[in-house]
Amino acid sequence: MPAKIIDGRPIAKRIQSEIASAVADFQAQSGAAPGLGVVLVGDDSASAMYVRMKRRACERAGLQSQARILPSSATQTEVEDAVRGYNADRGIHGILVQLPMSAHIDEEAVLNEISLAKDVDGIHPMNIGRLGMRGREPTFTPATPTGVMRLIEETGESIEGVQALVIGRSNIVGLPLALMLANANATVTICHSRTRDLPGTVRRADIVVAAVGQPEYVKGDWLKPGAIVIDVGSNSLPDPASEKGYRYVGDVEFESARAVAGYISKVPGGVGPMTITMLLSNTLKAARRSISG
Amino acid sequence: MPAKIIDGRPIAKRIQSEIASAVADFQAQSGAAPGLGVVLVGDDSASAMYVRMKRRACERAGLQSQARILPSSATQTEVEDAVRGYNADRGIHGILVQLPMSAHIDEEAVLNEISLAKDVDGIHPMNIGRLGMRGREPTFTPATPTGVMRLIEETGESIEGVQALVIGRSNIVGLPLALMLANANATVTICHSRTRDLPGTVRRADIVVAAVGQPEYVKGDWLKPGAIVIDVGSNSLPDPASEKGYRYVGDVEFESARAVAGYISKVPGGVGPMTITMLLSNTLKAARRSISG
Repeated sequence: MPAKIIDGRPIAKRIQSEIASAVADFQAQSGAAPGLGVVLVGDDSASAMYVRMKRRACERAGLQSQARILPSSATQTEVEDAVRGYNADRGIHGILVQLPMSAHIDEEAVLNEISLAKDVDGIHPMNIGRLGMRGREPTFTPATPTGVMRLIEETGESIEGVQALVIGRSNIVGLPLALMLANANATVTICHSRTRDLPGTVRRADIVVAAVGQPEYVKGDWLKPGAIVIDVGSNSLPDPASEKGYRYVGDVEFESARAVAGYISKVPGGVGPMTITMLLSNTLKAARRSISG
Repeated sequence: MPAKIIDGRPIAKRIQSEIASAVADFQAQSGAAPGLGVVLVGDDSASAMYVRMKRRACERAGLQSQARILPSSATQTEVEDAVRGYNADRGIHGILVQLPMSAHIDEEAVLNEISLAKDVDGIHPMNIGRLGMRGREPTFTPATPTGVMRLIEETGESIEGVQALVIGRSNIVGLPLALMLANANATVTICHSRTRDLPGTVRRADIVVAAVGQPEYVKGDWLKPGAIVIDVGSNSLPDPASEKGYRYVGDVEFESARAVAGYISKVPGGVGPMTITMLLSNTLKAARRSISG
């Protein structure tokens, strides 16, 4: 029996509609909409596209959003000032710094400037530390891993005690996701480019999350039959048969994986819509906290 | 062939002698010895013993140490004031808050007060976050996991790419150790009380670190032949045959594990001496930074 397909779009749509309703309540109560401030440095076209998608999602849900778009020649101080400006702005409840930034910018120093109360991407080292530590709570959890956790929960299968495996250990996906899976009481294995016998390691996992950034890297015959497979990858491949000349594929070889897995998320339309949804959800949460404090 | 025994004492002694020599140089250069400030709340006898051991180790290596010993009735403010006092004290380069504290004290709030420049136990959430994140550096790494890494390195076996497994996910041992093993490019699995089939999971690991706090919990027949086994546990068991009436055992059943493992650390005398040594090393590092700044 082929895997059930996890389609993130209807799930995201349902949650975004709940968010829109809560945003309307918030606005009625406080007189203003929750506000997201985005900082974008340079003219990377993929980054610009992500920023546009976030702005449209904000509009649909009734949040207001601003973007500070700085040229790739911007100085460290200018970028940090953009963050500090949003920190001080009472109309901005959440701050998102679009990564990666130009190479000459000290990313760590910029991210450390974000006020913890507005760190809706959950990327401040203080929040990553709290995410991993027992008895600590981050102000926010990062959007993509939070979206992945929601997709896993949607299957209705248990996370507690099962073998979960994360391929990739980036600061914004792999690392925080491994910590969140451990918090949900999975037995978590962190794999990466230096892992020996990745297929054999993957084959033992009940939950596999691929966040490695390599097109169709994970093959179906690596998987344990019935596994839950979440594909965070979004890689464009040349495709002359497509109108655009390219198509998006994930980090998992979809057709071969579908034949073995119990569940598999779509690319595109799996994790992507959830990431934006979780960012909206965190911004709403930040706005609510700002008036309940 | 039974496992090679990893004896932490001669390794610790060698490193402490190097530290003592560097401390003498520091003192000649700066006019004062590196200083460690310890905060102890309550009258737990084990904690008091650990504090005494740290004081003696400081004396042997030429560091000066102070302890603020507060009654178990101390208020939150009094405990935080003790930390803030050390933060402001230019003769104190490293601060150690002995855990656990009395239940009425908000441990997180106390630890968050420690200046990052003096966080020689590497336990501040900011340092734990940086420890896990790519491209970030904590000011200090926690003493016990750092000592464990040194013991693994002493075997001369490769860490990169091998399967490493940590049993236990405490803030001061299991979690940071898993992050450090991943930084050393091991494929890391984090196990805990909810892990299903722990023996089967342990059997796949080339490196096993037990930090679970249960006497003789890990059995020899769980292990992969030739595995490196590091035992962080230190549990006292009643022993009428002993003069004191008790003896210390680790989290690993030593004799059965020794018959299967390639290397196994002693209890006592394995990780324990390394923990104190790494604390001295971090305090010296903090002192050096304070004058190079």
